[in-house]
Order: sequence, then C-alpha cells, then structure tokens
Amino acid sequence: MQLKEIIENNAEVVSDQILRVDSFINHMIDPNVMMEIGEEFARRFRDDKITKVLTIEASGIAIGLTTALALRTPLLFAKKKVPSTLGDSYVSNIYSFTKNESVTVSVAKQYLKSDDKILIVDDFLARGEALKGLAHLVKQADAELVGVGIVIEKAFQGGGKALRDAGVRIESLIKVSSLEGGKLHLEE
Amino acid sequence: MQLKEIIENNAEVVSDQILRVDSFINHMIDPNVMMEIGEEFARRFRDDKITKVLTIEASGIAIGLTTALALRTPLLFAKKKVPSTLGDSYVSNIYSFTKNESVTVSVAKQYLKSDDKILIVDDFLARGEALKGLAHLVKQADAELVGVGIVIEKAFQGGGKALRDAGVRIESLIKVSSLEGGKLHLEE
Repeated sequence: MQLKEIIENNAEVVSDQILRVDSFINHMIDPNVMMEIGEEFARRFRDDKITKVLTIEASGIAIGLTTALALRTPLLFAKKKVPSTLGDSYVSNIYSFTKNESVTVSVAKQYLKSDDKILIVDDFLARGEALKGLAHLVKQADAELVGVGIVIEKAFQGGGKALRDAGVRIESLIKVSSLEGGKLHLEE
Repeated sequence: MQLKEIIENNAEVVSDQILRVDSFINHMIDPNVMMEIGEEFARRFRDDKITKVLTIEASGIAIGLTTALALRTPLLFAKKKVPSTLGDSYVSNIYSFTKNESVTVSVAKQYLKSDDKILIVDDFLARGEALKGLAHLVKQADAELVGVGIVIEKAFQGGGKALRDAGVRIESLIKVSSLEGGKLHLEE
C-alpha cells in the first residue's frame, strides 16, 4: 500500500477541525510507517545537502529520527521549556490555537550553527505556528532553512499557503482540503 | 566502537547527581546510536514474544521506536497529560524528584490490552518513579510486563535495585555507580 493510502486509511476524523492519528503516528506508532515517512522525506531532500533535521518534542521525534537516519544526519528536537540558562539557547514562543496558550520552545546554541542546512519535519501543519517558531530558531542561529517535511497538511487552515507565499519550501505527504461531513477530503 | 563506550564517551557529568546526554540522545540525537540501542534491546528480549514496546514522551520515543522496529512490534508512548475523556485511558502519576512535582501520564485503553506482552524502555533509570508509573499503566490493563530496557541506569539512586527486588527484569546498557569527582564510575 502507498504511504498516502496508509495515512488516509488510518487517520480518524474527529471533527471539522481535528484529525487524529493516534493509532499509528501520535500515540501508538507503527515503526514501519515511520521508516517509510523518513525515507520519503529523505528522497525529496536528497540533493539539498541537509546537515541536520530539526523537529519539536514530542510529536515530531519519531518522524525526525527516521528522516535523519535516511539522510545520515543528526536529529535535533526543540524542547518545550524555558531553558534554565537562557544565554545558551535560542528561544521561540509558539501559540497554540487549539489550547489557546503559548509554549516556549528552545534549542541549545551549541547544536544549531550558522553553517547548518536545516530540514524541519513535523506530523501536522495547520496554521503554521509551530513551524514559524522552529523557523525562528533557525534564523536566530543564522542557519539556512532548506525546507519543511510535513506528514499531514491541513490546507484549509492556511498555514502552508502563508509560509509558501513567504518563500518556504514545504513538502507535505498529504494535503487535506476539508474534514467536513466526518470525511477526509484531499487536495488535487 | 562498542555501544557502551559510545555512551561513556558522550555522556557529560554535570554534577554528582546529573548526567547529561544532550549531544546524542536527549536533545540532539544520533540516529545510528539509536538504531544500535534498539537492536541491543531487541537482542536481549528476542525470545520473549513482546507484542508492544511502551515508553514515555518525549525522552523515550526515539529509543522506543528503534526497539519496536527491531522487535517488529508497535510502539506506544504514554502522554504527559490528563486525558480529556478520562474513562477511555489508563492514568498514573509520576513524581519527579528533580522537579519536585508530579506529572500525570496516560495511555488510551484501546492500545494497551490484557493479552499484550510489554517491554518498557527509557533513557534513564534513577529512582524508578517513571518506571513505576509506566508499570502501573500495564497493570491496569492486565497486560504482562515482560521486562525493562534502560540506556543508563544511575544505580546509586536505587530505583533499579528496588524494582529488581520486586521481581522486574531490567536490562541496562550501562550502570553508573557514582558521578563523584565529575567522573563516570561504572559498576562491575
């Protein structure tokens, strides 16, 4: 089965806004699906001389690990906490519309360098807040953001379009145009 | 290089109590080291008919993923949150001595069943609080806890001994007897 079909068949539409992938990505994880996701992202960014994969705990770690494995780079995951010694870290605030709160994310400066060519990966792209926060970490380090790999883009929430318009290369494995009527409607 | 040596060489002694593995396990991740860790745990539990690997977000996810991949099972990671619909989840409280606070962890009942044979994995074992919390989730589901795989056991904090005395099989890749003098002292 194609990766796209696996995602379509296992994602559960909870409401017009919420898609749940708890059975294979975000609570229980199917390691083989994760390996395929990582290999697919690696294929799409194979020629881009990526030096590091960046993601955010906890949802992005499995995806980041298999992508980094396939690209033969380290994985760096941003931590959701205010660093204890602030000067040693890059820090961003990410606003969550779902939770109506901000979370501080950080990476240690020693692991994100100006000569890094970064691929950001994550499970979902909705309004793009998490992605903007991660991109801001990359910018603070003066590193290069080469592109973004997303498993499921909720295109109807607009984050992907805004970021692409701003010049960010985003590769999404599936793009959801709507979740209306309890069904997954895909773009194209 | 042996896995044991890699861990010894890259772990950073921060104080008499704290060992940091941020350069290859717990912030930046070396995917190849993770694969080796997973394969080693799989080797040790190869004949135990494990049906599912269980860990806790975020630190255990990478280790759990490679272990589950090698054992050809799913990975289930406990979430650090109070579930929104309580009846659908098993819940434990884990006390953190480092942070002096409790955190609620949960797994959805549908993913942890009475016929599951569970291997728990995590990066550290110190006082054993996280492990006890995870074991309690397994017990609530009436599943079987076959054993535990730990990357670094801080043996001087006593959690491992207490759990082994209670009959839990624990496989630690390295056992630290002390961090005194800014150095890693290993058991044996």
